[in-house]
Amino acid sequence: MITLYHCQDARSLRCLWALEELQLPYELKAMAFPPRVHAPELLSLHPTGTVPLLLDGEQILFESAACLEYLACRDRSRGLAVASDDPHFGAWLNWLHFGEASLTTPLATMMRYAHFEPEPRRQPAVVADHRTIFLDRLQLVERALQDREYLVADRFTVADISVGYAFVLARMLKLLGDLSPALQAYWGRLQQRPAYLAARAAQKVAMASLVPAA
Amino acid sequence: MITLYHCQDARSLRCLWALEELQLPYELKAMAFPPRVHAPELLSLHPTGTVPLLLDGEQILFESAACLEYLACRDRSRGLAVASDDPHFGAWLNWLHFGEASLTTPLATMMRYAHFEPEPRRQPAVVADHRTIFLDRLQLVERALQDREYLVADRFTVADISVGYAFVLARMLKLLGDLSPALQAYWGRLQQRPAYLAARAAQKVAMASLVPAA
Repeated sequence: MITLYHCQDARSLRCLWALEELQLPYELKAMAFPPRVHAPELLSLHPTGTVPLLLDGEQILFESAACLEYLACRDRSRGLAVASDDPHFGAWLNWLHFGEASLTTPLATMMRYAHFEPEPRRQPAVVADHRTIFLDRLQLVERALQDREYLVADRFTVADISVGYAFVLARMLKLLGDLSPALQAYWGRLQQRPAYLAARAAQKVAMASLVPAA
Repeated sequence: MITLYHCQDARSLRCLWALEELQLPYELKAMAFPPRVHAPELLSLHPTGTVPLLLDGEQILFESAACLEYLACRDRSRGLAVASDDPHFGAWLNWLHFGEASLTTPLATMMRYAHFEPEPRRQPAVVADHRTIFLDRLQLVERALQDREYLVADRFTVADISVGYAFVLARMLKLLGDLSPALQAYWGRLQQRPAYLAARAAQKVAMASLVPAA
């Protein structure tokens, strides 16, 4: 049985979405944000106290894009992974890593300096720089989608979850209006997937059961 | 034949190191920094003009940790990859992604706001924040190395290249003195690898052949 530690709309949403795509059984441990404050149990397993934390028997993962790859390879029957002898393997790995390392990290920096830091520590210039970085990198996604529905291998894979999650943060940061029609259509397709909707529903139920923070 | 676009000590050093570990033939295209200014040829292949850019027949990759994974899986005979049916597979993926997404990105932010931006746009508070983030995350590496020489699977893998590259940036940022003795010893082991030394030598030759920027 897989256990996933999760906070509302955090990177762990990637894992939840993948679990729903794969229809794997899982236990969802929902926590208030920030998890390091609200879940001492998490800290004993993972000293920096971030989410996701994914447990599967002896396997412990805390990098969300690594979790995507791990889960997709754990059950290849759904086609969410691309095999290493497939000509699309390189592109699949590239988008899988890109979604987090290149596309989501500038948004996380924006969240920090636009919202999470107390007012005197906010950094409008840094927020503006990272908006530019995000939009610049997004042109690579746009180019990849020029003649296809999903990023790689002519089908939906966890690479689309890796990149798609960036749009969850982009919405919070009110950047969706900066997306081209093609990218808006892509995000629209992703959001309509039954597994994405199931992940959001599972999140809603789990968060509702939390005792509100004092 | 593999082609690698590379700048001095940039993330593409990860790929160069892996190519040397694997003893694969490659063509090294060295460029002055920043590559988007100095290599219009690169821009036609990769619109954001960053390195690495790795070409292998039809495969094009530009995420350095994805390149590591791709190269390690391209030739598994050297044991730099961990197979998906190996009990260390999850941890391997985790460190491979972590090295870039969690450990190197805060250092890249430090580089930007401590060195690359012109003086009036530097951000000492942001640099200090990201130093703290880096050191906080480093404790996870320290814990993983408590009773072993390499991060995963009781052998050197590309996960060690992914994490090890962060120490190249940490040195430029004068953070090596903040490393524990165990981490300094780990970085010492990595730096002594013949393939790391060969990559540095190949870089030196390639950079020396560049026409100096005006």
